Amino acid sequence: MRQAGRSLPEYRAARAGVPMLESCLRPELASEITLQPVRRHRVDAGIFFSDIVIPLRLAGVGVDIVAGRGPVLDAPVRSATDVARLRELSLAPDALQPIRDAVAITVAELGSTPLIGFAGAPFTLAAYLVEGGPSKDHIQARTLMHADPDAWHDLLEWAADVSGAFLRAQLLAGASAGQLFDSWAGSLSRTDYVDSVAWASARVFDDVRDLGAPLVHFGVGTGEILPDLLAAGADVVGVDWRIPLDEAARRVGRVPLQGNIDPALLGAPWPVLEAHVLDVVRRGRAAPAHVLNLGHGVPADTDPEVLTRLVELVHSLPRP
Amino acid sequence: MRQAGRSLPEYRAARAGVPMLESCLRPELASEITLQPVRRHRVDAGIFFSDIVIPLRLAGVGVDIVAGRGPVLDAPVRSATDVARLRELSLAPDALQPIRDAVAITVAELGSTPLIGFAGAPFTLAAYLVEGGPSKDHIQARTLMHADPDAWHDLLEWAADVSGAFLRAQLLAGASAGQLFDSWAGSLSRTDYVDSVAWASARVFDDVRDLGAPLVHFGVGTGEILPDLLAAGADVVGVDWRIPLDEAARRVGRVPLQGNIDPALLGAPWPVLEAHVLDVVRRGRAAPAHVLNLGHGVPADTDPEVLTRLVELVHSLPRP
Repeated sequence: MRQAGRSLPEYRAARAGVPMLESCLRPELASEITLQPVRRHRVDAGIFFSDIVIPLRLAGVGVDIVAGRGPVLDAPVRSATDVARLRELSLAPDALQPIRDAVAITVAELGSTPLIGFAGAPFTLAAYLVEGGPSKDHIQARTLMHADPDAWHDLLEWAADVSGAFLRAQLLAGASAGQLFDSWAGSLSRTDYVDSVAWASARVFDDVRDLGAPLVHFGVGTGEILPDLLAAGADVVGVDWRIPLDEAARRVGRVPLQGNIDPALLGAPWPVLEAHVLDVVRRGRAAPAHVLNLGHGVPADTDPEVLTRLVELVHSLPRP
Repeated sequence: MRQAGRSLPEYRAARAGVPMLESCLRPELASEITLQPVRRHRVDAGIFFSDIVIPLRLAGVGVDIVAGRGPVLDAPVRSATDVARLRELSLAPDALQPIRDAVAITVAELGSTPLIGFAGAPFTLAAYLVEGGPSKDHIQARTLMHADPDAWHDLLEWAADVSGAFLRAQLLAGASAGQLFDSWAGSLSRTDYVDSVAWASARVFDDVRDLGAPLVHFGVGTGEILPDLLAAGADVVGVDWRIPLDEAARRVGRVPLQGNIDPALLGAPWPVLEAHVLDVVRRGRAAPAHVLNLGHGVPADTDPEVLTRLVELVHSLPRP
């Protein structure tokens, strides 16, 4: 469960006084935060603690997380000139050392429990770069896509290479699987996704395919483009809470699915959450495999005991 | 085109020094802002200038528009107690007088050009009330829906009555059609929409159906629930830019559709925008009627001349 840490008191204690991006770049701390929810909830895998803009920061982009707003850029990328300037930045091999170290420490601690690596997809990275701050519909990014297709191509190519290097570093350091998060792909029409975005996600998958790790592709509100997330080169397709897994399976074919528990249900009375989880599990049997997970991140105000109980419930179910 | 005004210099001049919500409540000013894009672009209808939270403000809710953030509430509605307190507020008939006046002045000025009335749908109003500020996935509102269904029902019922009274006032004062905006309905699974939300939008439509005006139902990212937007009692279904109109027609059946021009294309070179508009028009012929419009609001940085040229293009096309 991504962001499962942030509802934990031990997470808030570990993070006290440490800015978000810095906490991702201190290997011991990033590892500790990755391990906390595994220890507490006894989930079957850890997910590497990082932030989607970390590879941008490591490449030299001026970006920070502003509390209550999210990632904010010093200078948004709005033109071909801005894109050309961005492309002078790159991820030096040394820059990724804190990531490699954090993964290596974590994998050693986890023992037989696998670690899932994490990277933002090129469109989502590009959306952050172009918008420069929070956005509901990513219209500045989508405008650049249509107004200057060459600059858009160069921007996505750069973002894909940064994302690929970030994910590859995690897999080489010991992560057992890789997850590509295209958080904002749901703001696109299917035509735009297929014509102007999918190739860049495919480029990330191509960067790491030789490592043989299972690759997950996930986005929020992506019911219309689930088959395209698969076609970009994923082995597993993540599904948010908007469509049920039997419908998702109908759309993507015989492919493992991940996710689908609605985070909004974590605040409901236990019998309501339990019925929802059992429904998700039942519908997930329409797929050849189902990596049970939330359909999006854990809300920060979630009662950690609910998450522990949810994991116990799932572990108590008969395997299909 | 909703929010067509905000890209106009004459809009910025008219609004200078006047806070957003106040500009909606000064009848002469709200009317002037409604008329500006009709005068300039020669569109076939005006859309009443208002803000989605205006009926909340008129009912006594402490809410204001914060620049760069959107509507912010003094006290978010998070519990059954908060909902009970909210329900002590109501829209006094007098409270709607500035709305009636603005519509009456506008309709007189418009002559034979129709005016479309506007109201936020109960779910979207409830999302603003519960979140209390900007939100990407409206998870606090969706959590209340599952955590306390009775409080949720009472909240939506109150919001529906406020929304219905607001829309009814506009239609009685002379608006020719009514548009219900469920901006955030796309954050819901279809099951949640059908089970816990659709009845409240239906209640708004029921409040105004006797007036005989055509009723439009629109939401962003609602491809999965288009048939349910129709079933709530609309005559016309609005479609954002995510799915093409021939696909929308396949989903909803023989019903007039509205919208679908991607606002992100307004910043593209003219030939790209022109090809997009012609494609939208062509696919819209799959529906028995198509009210050509953007799939969402006009971005504030749009070149007004592009909008004028777009309207000229559409007027130059042969009628089907």
